[in-house]
Amino acid sequence: MLVIKIGGGAAIGEGSYTNFAEDLATIGEQVVVVHGGNAEFSELSRQLGMPPRMITSSTGRVTRYTDAATMDVMLMAYCGKVNKRLVATLRASGVNAVGLSAIDGGIAVGRRKPVLRGTEDGKSKVLREDHAGTLETVDPSLVLLLLQNGYTPVLTPPALGDEGIPINVDGDKVALELATALQADGLLFFSDTPGLLRDRHDESSLIAEIDASSPESALSSAAGRMVVKVEAALGAVERGVDRVIFADGRIANPIHAALNGQGTTVRRTTATASQTGIR
Amino acid sequence: MLVIKIGGGAAIGEGSYTNFAEDLATIGEQVVVVHGGNAEFSELSRQLGMPPRMITSSTGRVTRYTDAATMDVMLMAYCGKVNKRLVATLRASGVNAVGLSAIDGGIAVGRRKPVLRGTEDGKSKVLREDHAGTLETVDPSLVLLLLQNGYTPVLTPPALGDEGIPINVDGDKVALELATALQADGLLFFSDTPGLLRDRHDESSLIAEIDASSPESALSSAAGRMVVKVEAALGAVERGVDRVIFADGRIANPIHAALNGQGTTVRRTTATASQTGIR
Repeated sequence: MLVIKIGGGAAIGEGSYTNFAEDLATIGEQVVVVHGGNAEFSELSRQLGMPPRMITSSTGRVTRYTDAATMDVMLMAYCGKVNKRLVATLRASGVNAVGLSAIDGGIAVGRRKPVLRGTEDGKSKVLREDHAGTLETVDPSLVLLLLQNGYTPVLTPPALGDEGIPINVDGDKVALELATALQADGLLFFSDTPGLLRDRHDESSLIAEIDASSPESALSSAAGRMVVKVEAALGAVERGVDRVIFADGRIANPIHAALNGQGTTVRRTTATASQTGIR
Repeated sequence: MLVIKIGGGAAIGEGSYTNFAEDLATIGEQVVVVHGGNAEFSELSRQLGMPPRMITSSTGRVTRYTDAATMDVMLMAYCGKVNKRLVATLRASGVNAVGLSAIDGGIAVGRRKPVLRGTEDGKSKVLREDHAGTLETVDPSLVLLLLQNGYTPVLTPPALGDEGIPINVDGDKVALELATALQADGLLFFSDTPGLLRDRHDESSLIAEIDASSPESALSSAAGRMVVKVEAALGAVERGVDRVIFADGRIANPIHAALNGQGTTVRRTTATASQTGIR
């Protein structure tokens, strides 16, 4: 079974949905789809006169401030437009898709952090009533029920907060926790790059493989956001996911390409070799 | 098992969701929820500078023209904001809710009618690329799977058109066809009136009961939109739904009130009497 995360960047629009649909229709394996929607979220926010407010924490992490009205916009973009357009495209290709948010059926529950501190445009800010938080528990029961009955679940943030209100959580984290809970054979992250790059301005600097048994060299050459991604992938492999792949979501047959080695594959190469030796 | 339809009028907002949640948490019976979202749809359309275009057919039926951009707005309002806010409220009250559109899992499939003819502001119009249509088939498999596993499905239009694109279909019709397919014990329509009224300007003119075996007097006193509702209810009873209730969605404990006889109940009073005689 595979968990695939389709990023919400502007480069992965409705044309890309068709590419994913073609692969999913022929893959012959259970797949859970998780998607983002950030480009649609930002565009709708601007159309409604609510441009994104980005807050930088003391550790340099950039977060979007999400008040109640902004959460409504998030629900509309992620759960409304992106989720249902993707499900319609999948169904038209013969994939028995069911679109859900992580709120539904208690799939993901998080802890709300209503106060957001940091800087905005260089000024120190304390913003209250934030509807964001951290993922706490993932319950794969509903996802498993759907898979066992021939459906392809298509999931999106937000999750449900402990006060019973929707909260903005990281979609990558939802995919990762689900893949771990389901002990997936593969966890595939699709975005608008060919994979993990040594130099993020140079697509030819792709790292093809990271051995989870000795990731030091990969981590030493990684910087910023990439360190977070590599560490998350290593954690998933540690917790039983067979391989994590970072791959290009903009190309034709994106899933087949990723499984055939395009992109960056993170797995225990050493363990695989020793298992081969035992046979 | 009950199917309840919660209307999408402005009078049934988030405060009403809490009323429904309280009843659903204590009802002790399987329930399928279907909801509308028309007030949110219209408000979002206006905010986005796309005010509703209403077309009147030659038979006097008023339809909203839904081009592709308007369908996105419908998806955002119905499947995004209304569906997920309602599900979050239900879950916070302990109802194991799962929000879905009628697109998901092939719940409802319709035939698209891309050309809309009629008059707009008194002028004759032929509008193409309409994303609306008529409901053709309802597949209750996914809804049944969820009910049998302890979930409360919360459904909303649109449905999937035969070309694989979302189409605007009537939510009342989705509820009615599902109730029939599931052979529900009750089909409850909640809106912003106390039930069916002899005089729609006078809430005290409520019709408490319509005997489905002899509906002539009720039909003779009904007019316009009410005739359509009564005929739909009679059809559902004819096809095996035990009773259809039109009730007030604005009050506390709306479901309990409806089941206790507030509102308008349509059923076979005569058949019930004869069954009693046989015992």
